[in-house]
Formats: sequence, C-alpha cells, structure tokens
Amino acid sequence: MLGKAELDIRLVFNIMGFLLMMEGVFMLLGLPFALYYRDPKAWTLPLSFLITSGAGSLLWYLTRHKSKTQINKREGFLVVSMAWFITSLFGTLPYLISGAIPSLTNAFFETMSGFTTTGATILTDIEALPKGILFWRSMTHWVGGMGIIVLSVAVLPFLGIGGMQLYTAEMPGITKDKLHPRITETAKRLWGIYLILTLAQAFLLMLGNMSLFDSLCHAFGTMATGGFSTKNDSIAGFSPYIQYVIILFMILAATNFTLHYFAFMGRFRLIWKNEEFRKYLYLLAIVTAIVTALLVWKAGLPGEKAFRDAFFQVVSIVTTTGYITSDYLAWPGTIWFFIFLLMFIGGMSGSTGSGTKVVRQMLLFKTAGKEMKRAMHPQGVIPVRLNNEAVSQDIIFKVMAFIQLYILIFAFGVMVMAFLGLDFETAIGATIATLGNIGPGIGDVGPTGNYAFIPTPGKWFLSLLMMLGRLELFTLLILFSSAFWKK
Amino acid sequence: MLGKAELDIRLVFNIMGFLLMMEGVFMLLGLPFALYYRDPKAWTLPLSFLITSGAGSLLWYLTRHKSKTQINKREGFLVVSMAWFITSLFGTLPYLISGAIPSLTNAFFETMSGFTTTGATILTDIEALPKGILFWRSMTHWVGGMGIIVLSVAVLPFLGIGGMQLYTAEMPGITKDKLHPRITETAKRLWGIYLILTLAQAFLLMLGNMSLFDSLCHAFGTMATGGFSTKNDSIAGFSPYIQYVIILFMILAATNFTLHYFAFMGRFRLIWKNEEFRKYLYLLAIVTAIVTALLVWKAGLPGEKAFRDAFFQVVSIVTTTGYITSDYLAWPGTIWFFIFLLMFIGGMSGSTGSGTKVVRQMLLFKTAGKEMKRAMHPQGVIPVRLNNEAVSQDIIFKVMAFIQLYILIFAFGVMVMAFLGLDFETAIGATIATLGNIGPGIGDVGPTGNYAFIPTPGKWFLSLLMMLGRLELFTLLILFSSAFWKK
Repeated sequence: MLGKAELDIRLVFNIMGFLLMMEGVFMLLGLPFALYYRDPKAWTLPLSFLITSGAGSLLWYLTRHKSKTQINKREGFLVVSMAWFITSLFGTLPYLISGAIPSLTNAFFETMSGFTTTGATILTDIEALPKGILFWRSMTHWVGGMGIIVLSVAVLPFLGIGGMQLYTAEMPGITKDKLHPRITETAKRLWGIYLILTLAQAFLLMLGNMSLFDSLCHAFGTMATGGFSTKNDSIAGFSPYIQYVIILFMILAATNFTLHYFAFMGRFRLIWKNEEFRKYLYLLAIVTAIVTALLVWKAGLPGEKAFRDAFFQVVSIVTTTGYITSDYLAWPGTIWFFIFLLMFIGGMSGSTGSGTKVVRQMLLFKTAGKEMKRAMHPQGVIPVRLNNEAVSQDIIFKVMAFIQLYILIFAFGVMVMAFLGLDFETAIGATIATLGNIGPGIGDVGPTGNYAFIPTPGKWFLSLLMMLGRLELFTLLILFSSAFWKK
Repeated sequence: MLGKAELDIRLVFNIMGFLLMMEGVFMLLGLPFALYYRDPKAWTLPLSFLITSGAGSLLWYLTRHKSKTQINKREGFLVVSMAWFITSLFGTLPYLISGAIPSLTNAFFETMSGFTTTGATILTDIEALPKGILFWRSMTHWVGGMGIIVLSVAVLPFLGIGGMQLYTAEMPGITKDKLHPRITETAKRLWGIYLILTLAQAFLLMLGNMSLFDSLCHAFGTMATGGFSTKNDSIAGFSPYIQYVIILFMILAATNFTLHYFAFMGRFRLIWKNEEFRKYLYLLAIVTAIVTALLVWKAGLPGEKAFRDAFFQVVSIVTTTGYITSDYLAWPGTIWFFIFLLMFIGGMSGSTGSGTKVVRQMLLFKTAGKEMKRAMHPQGVIPVRLNNEAVSQDIIFKVMAFIQLYILIFAFGVMVMAFLGLDFETAIGATIATLGNIGPGIGDVGPTGNYAFIPTPGKWFLSLLMMLGRLELFTLLILFSSAFWKK
C-alpha cells in the first residue's frame, strides 16, 4: 500500500536542494588549508561552493510549496538514489574548475568513489594535487560516511531493506511505517559519535607526528572506511604507530554505530551480546593469525612486521577501507587469495563498512548448516538463531535474495569489464573492489595500480557498481522496476 | 524421525556388493572390441571382471543376513555416496592392470571423472590407449549416467534433496516416506528410454560413417553428458553431420527424462507445459544466437561454421557434456566469458546433465524479481510461480541454500587449487569444470588442455568435487554432519 502512495516530486527536489546547499558548505572547509599551503587556485573552493549551494538554494526555493513534510517509501528510494548521483555530479566542480582532474568522466569516478566510501582512484600522482583539492577529496569520504550511517541505521530499515533490518526491533527512532521525527535525534547522536571518533583519530595521528592536514584527511578516509590517502604509497610510508592507530579506527568504523552508542552510554554488556560483533572480531583475529603465520613461514618476514602487514591488510579489506601498507598481490604462495575472498564479506551492518556485511554471511552459513540437519530430520523445526533469537524465514529469505543478487551483479560486472578488454583477473578485481566499495582489487587494479587506464564506459559502469554496492542494491534497482512507477 | 531410524550397515554393504557384481559385468562388455582390435592385453578386462564381481559376490554373500529389504533415508545417503566412491576404486582396475594408466591417482581421477559423467581427463594421448580400455572408459560414463537418472528422478527426491523434488507431486514411483517398490518399475522404464536413445544415437552416428566402436563410445559419452571421446581432438575432426547429431543428443540427454517418458507415451502437451524445458531451450537458442553473431562479427567466421561452433559449444557446456569442436578460449573478444558463465547453470533436473540445474537458476531470478516487488509492496503476497503453480517458501529456500553452498564450495575449491600452485584462471576453471561435471574449463584445463599436470593432492580434491557436484552436494556432505551419525 505504501508503494502506491503519491509521489510528491517537489518534496524530493526540495530535499535534494537542501543536500546540495550542505554539500557546498563542506566544499568550503578545505579553504583554510588551500590558503595555508599557498595554493594559487584557492579560489576554486569558494567558487565551487557558490555554484553548488547556489543551485541547491534555487532548487530548494522553487520547490518550497511541497504538499507535506514527511517522505514516504517511494520518495525515500528516489531521494537516496538521487542524492548520491547528484552530489557526485556537483562534487566534480573543485576537480574540474581547478583543472586537477580535467576530464568529467575521471572527476565523476573520483567523486563517486569518494561519496560511496570506495577509495578507488584514477589519479596516478596523488601528491601533485593542491592541498585544498586533496582535502575536498578526503571530505567526500567523510560526508559519504555520514550519509551512510543515517542511511543504513535509519533510512534503509524504513525502506524495508539492508542488513540493519535484523535489528529493527532494538533500533531507536524507527517505526515500521514512517520515518519517525525521532530520526533527526538519532541522526544527530550518530553524527556526534562519528565526529568524536574522527577527531579522536586525528588527534592520535597527530601524536604520531602526522601533520594536521594529513591527520584530518586520513581520519576522514578511515572513519568512512573510504581509503583515499594523501600519499602515493597510501599508508606504507608511515610509522608502525600510525599504522596501528589506523587499524584500530578501521575496526571501529566498520562496527555497527549503535554499539558505539551503547559504549558511550556505558552499556558494555549489550556490545558483547551482539553476535555479529563477536563474529566480526573472530573473523579478523583468525584470518590475521593465518596470514601472519603464512607470511612468516613462506616469506620469512620478521614477526612484528608480518603481523602488522597481515593485520593491516586483513582489516583494511574486511572493513572495505582499502588503505595499503603492503602489496598483498606480491605476497608469496597464494595468500592473496585469502584477501580476495575477504572482499566478498564486508563490515558490520549499520557501520560505514560496505560489502555484503558480516551478519548476512553468518546467516548464510547457519542456513546451510540448518538445511543439512533438515535433510536428516525433515519433521524437525530448526530455526536459524541470531543473538539467541530465532530469525524469521522472511528475513533469511531477504538475506539470501540479497547475496544471490550480489553474485549475479558481480558476474554481470565481470562480463562487462571483460568485454571492455580487461583481462580476467583485472575484470574480477575491478568489479568486486567497486561493488564492495573497497578500492584496490586484484590484477591491474591491485594495491600498486589505479583505475586511470579503464576505458571511459568502464569508468561510468564501475561508478554505477559503487552506487549499487553502497545503496545495498535494492535501493537503486527498485527505481528500474515497473512496480515503482506504476500507479 | 526418519533420520533416527536404525542404520543396518549389512543392508548397505549388501547393496554395494550387488553394485560391484554389476560393475564387473559392464567391464566385460569391452572384450569383443579388445579381441577384434587384437589388443595383446585383452585379458585385462576378464581379469578385472573376476576381481570386481568376485569381491562384489563375496560382499553380497557375507551380508546376506540383512534385517530388512527396504532402505531408509540414512542408509540411502550412505549407499549413494559409497556407490560412487567404491565403484570408482574398482573401476581403476582395467587401467592399472593393463598399465594404460599406471598411477592409482590418475586412474582414480579418470574413473571418477567417468562415473560422475564429468569427462575431465589426465590422458595426454587418448588414441594411444587400447580399444578395450577406451571402451571401458566410455562405459564408465554410460553406467554413471544410468545411476544418475535413477538417483535424480527417484532416490534424491526420496532423500528430500535435489532439483527434482520440485516435481515430486507429478512423479511416478515416489512416495514421501519410503522408496516405493514401484521405483524398480520406474528405473526399468527410464533405463529403457536411456538405452533406446543411446542406440538411436549410435545408429545415426554410424550413418555418418563413424565406426561401430566410435559410435558406441560417443553415444555413451553424449547420453551421459560425459564428454570422454576416443579422439585427441574430441569432436573437432568429425563431419558437420556427426557434430549436429551429437548436438541433438546432448540436448536430449540434459532434458528431464520424465519428459522423454511423456514423449514415448505420446503426451506431447505435457512436455511443452514444462516451464523448465521451455527456458532450457530458450537459453540455448538465445546464447547460441549471441555467440554466433559475435563469431561472425568479431572473428569473421562463415555463417554455418560460426553457428555450428557456437551451437556445439554452448550446448556442450550447458548440458555439462564437455565435448569440443572449437577452442572457445581462443575465440576473439571475450566470448569465452559467456561460455564460462554458462558453466554455472547446467542441464535440466532429472536428466544426466549436472551443474546447478536450469530450474534452480529460474527460481533464483524469479525470487530476486519478487523481492524487488516486495520492497515496494510489503503487504502484498507475490508467490514465485513455476509451471503456473505457486512454489512453496520451503522449496525456494532449499534452492537458495543449494546455490549458496555451491558458490561457497566453488570459492573454497578455487582457494585449494590456488594453494596448490595453479594460476587464478586455471584454479577457477578446474574447480567449476569438475564441480559442475563439465570436463574442460578455462585456463590450462581449457579445451586444448588436460588435468595431467595437476599435483596429486589436487587430483584427489578435484575427484571429491566431481562427486560433490554429481550427488547434489547434500548427499555427500550430510555424511560429515553430526546429525547423521548421532542416535
């Protein structure tokens, strides 16, 4: 019934206008750095602000006569999908106007990669960019991360999709039918936590003698699980201390933000009771241990270095951040295949991490085990349990449909990239690295590569994959279904 | 409750003994050819017969005091899994005794590849083998195909797994609790059809000037959707007529055998009413058309040749046969990726074709579409339909669990093969080609390659994958679950 609700396109554009006004303001934030580092084109940022916020204000003004103030489902799908696309379009302005990235295709790819917290880049020499532009580049991550937290914790469950619907019952600010006014309260609280964690990380990075500029940019890239660095060799050139700090905050960033909320409230028991959180930590610990052992054994790396490289890359891939301290494709044996498989998992639901999410993979394994038991005891009812509670068939069903669709899109993506002339490994690597919002993949888009050489249609297609992965597939796909548009 | 039924291990071994007796007899059938072609080691076959049937008789005699004559579920799982393993062990005798394949690993791989109708070979020069041994090699396909028809149409639905359970209601000879005595009748009828189709194909091949020996061997390989040829270049050297005949019978072999039964009864309406059959034909037609067009356009092949090569390889891969007329990896552009994706589909349920089966892929797509609609209309009940009837949630669930497990095993398989030192493409190719019981894959195990170079543990592992794929995963995996063994 909700689907048949009237679509007030003015309300949709009114919200878009507001978002563009905000985006413009975020563009301005890099201005102090542009001035401090004496960027001759510092005026790029205020000009981009004027265009973006100006267009936003105009749009907002023209659509002020909206029929209502609360959005329904159909409008929700439209707003979310349009938001990522339109902010990415306007987000190219600093790149294009400054000439840092002269091609629209490349600038759009880079901006979409930022807002979707992917971190895939078309830049071959990152350090050559003016500081103000680099700040905007990292800022797209951070703003995208803000959007994702609200999206995954509040908007997607309201739309009936996404990993967080498993927690709907416990979630503050969500009712089944409407985006409750309390959503604003929830959003503010989550953003507060996001801001505090970002500042805490930036502070700890500065303690390790990182500049304020680099600290902020890397904190943005970490907390959004993005992966844009200000350095050509990503995190490899920084001290072990810096690397461990980034590991810690990557783990926190891909943790469900409601758990952070519980931590701030001092309700630590609720955190450990969360099964997804436990499995997420176990996963990181076990895979890190295996990779460390293999690095010591097969590559003869010294213990701490092997542990740090293994830990960093495992965390970086599982959290879908994509920062690099070591070229995992150059690791001996076939350790890299471990890393490749991790690309299909992703972070926790309700975090800034992307991918298929830990909770879905858990339910997948539990369901497979259950089916095995059921073949023996067809009469027995063996529910799949999560957090010690039975999960409804309906939820399991949605989880499986999601994974299936994910794999279908992955296969389709590989086919498209292969048709565009990429070799098999690169086609696979580029597809999963963008669909999973990771950044570096395997093949020519691995840790030492970039996306500059991808043909133009490929860059637009990969941008679409980033959006699909970030918006949990259905949000975007539903716009193409007849059910969405017919009365 | 059924799972808790007592396990009469004597009954299990009694059946095994009977199967071994039969296997020995099938070994003898190649003797006339060994004698006609003056094989100096023709005695290999009778000796293998004596050992196999002798061991079978002994086993049968020792376990004659079984407590009952009808098997229950637990025994069913054991019998089916053991059958493929033990007949493969004894099936190595002709290879080992004759010295045609001196290594046990290679002989076991080749026999398992035969019985599972895979068609992957470790032979580098097939034509060097004595005719009697080649006949046994093709015979393993044919016998495996016989086993598969009964397994997929009767035994697996009784065990509550496999694609055919979708048809349970319409199936003759199956009740929910017990393997009905009528199963013997059903089996006889199906085998009759299998025999008639095999003889019909051999006859048509002989009309194309193929020798009786080659005609029988290729009919065995086709009707079982196996893929063993008697020639080093598979079907490439034969006439277009021969190739079209093989295409036709590959399509028939991967068609549900109950539809053949309907055809023999003259009930053609029931055939076209079968949705899986229609989609199976559409799939073949559409992909063939696309590949033909690409071969004409990109490779400049003449029309008939392009059509024949495309048709043959598309049919060969979808039906999981694995015969080769053209090296699809050498095709221009990235047409080969089409072929690679087809490897994940497979034939119809209830046929000798393997893979995930067309019906499962259909339900997968339908379910994904349904979930999309449901996101818009959460209150609406939109059942997934097959043959115009609503499919129960439970069946959909099993189908999805199967596909998930299939993909997990595939990923695990690629990891194992990568660890054994295979490059990425070959690891992927070898895994899907054995798990899907196809034969040729991509990479070094492509149409022009073989499995000789795979390291020993890899050959045993791939043999396990062949068995897993052929027995629809659960049949074998369930033996490793605690639920199976505990009282």
